[in-house]
Amino acid sequence: MNNQYPSLLLEKAVSEFAKLPGVGNKTAMRLVLHLLNQDTATVEAFGNAIIQLKREVKYCRVCHNISDTDVCNICSNPKRDATTVCVVQNIRDVMAIESTQQYQGLYHVLGGLISPMDGMGPKNLQIDSLIERVAQGDIKEVIFALNTTMEGDTTCFYISRRLKDYPVKLSVLARGVSVGDELEYTDEVTLGRSIINRMPYKVNG
Amino acid sequence: MNNQYPSLLLEKAVSEFAKLPGVGNKTAMRLVLHLLNQDTATVEAFGNAIIQLKREVKYCRVCHNISDTDVCNICSNPKRDATTVCVVQNIRDVMAIESTQQYQGLYHVLGGLISPMDGMGPKNLQIDSLIERVAQGDIKEVIFALNTTMEGDTTCFYISRRLKDYPVKLSVLARGVSVGDELEYTDEVTLGRSIINRMPYKVNG
Repeated sequence: MNNQYPSLLLEKAVSEFAKLPGVGNKTAMRLVLHLLNQDTATVEAFGNAIIQLKREVKYCRVCHNISDTDVCNICSNPKRDATTVCVVQNIRDVMAIESTQQYQGLYHVLGGLISPMDGMGPKNLQIDSLIERVAQGDIKEVIFALNTTMEGDTTCFYISRRLKDYPVKLSVLARGVSVGDELEYTDEVTLGRSIINRMPYKVNG
Repeated sequence: MNNQYPSLLLEKAVSEFAKLPGVGNKTAMRLVLHLLNQDTATVEAFGNAIIQLKREVKYCRVCHNISDTDVCNICSNPKRDATTVCVVQNIRDVMAIESTQQYQGLYHVLGGLISPMDGMGPKNLQIDSLIERVAQGDIKEVIFALNTTMEGDTTCFYISRRLKDYPVKLSVLARGVSVGDELEYTDEVTLGRSIINRMPYKVNG
């Protein structure tokens, strides 16, 4: 298969792209040929953007979110509610919650979930630093916003045990029927839980 | 939307990836975070592979295929049949035909198809250099292996007119029912043409 490429440079570029998740050899080839048709400045901007990000990226020393500064602009914003911390798996979750514009507290990015199968234990995650933040005494509520998977549930349970002696309220995201979903097509577990956890009826609520 | 990114460097890298064809903002984010989880050497290898390709890429001066050398290793291979030239749109087509291992002649990469809607005229393509190759007198057959689209047909027609005074045989790829296809699901145009252009029955042929 290797000698099908007319150029070693091309083969190298294609094989680098094909390492990306969800990108096979054919897609990699299409992307590389697309870039090759751009001018040199565009291609250099592309290549250097990712190299520069990797070299210069910083993580907020409080919440471990990606940041250009030592403390991120969420943690350093005096308008945010510093008594509430939302625990998330990764920075994409921070961005997802921020885009709802419904949350005014701070975050704590774990950097993964406890998953012994993948070799991820509590020591590989930013759990100790979360406990330290809580131990300082300003935090009143910790919200778990983790996936509803085995790994997410395990991580919630582990952290809740570590926090059991601190005077903080623990909460999780509401689970239930998605807004806009038809009941007929909602899975039984979700529907069952949303009957058990039914809420008082409010107009526009 | 822009201020949702926690870091300008991240935003820049994501926007570069999102320029690739078929890659939206969410996929770009996923790819960038994947690379960010790799070590620095891996990320630099990725970024530099594409920059190096763009800077150092060469095109064969005979057939215009991508090449590491002045003349590509197909054109310079004495075992290939230099009397037959297969005209293709781009280097992916060369690779597709090479992977069949059924063709021993040379290629000519046009770099596109005639498409006035996209501003592609004959002058933007490697057509003059094809005529020159034929004019040298060694080529006995030109095979058109272009898409069966309006643009492909127009390009075939244009080149065939330019070559009409040269003693070369012109041919096109056989069109018909794909190997493995069921007749029931073959489109009428293909099925109709393959009845008109029916071939003598041969075992294994």
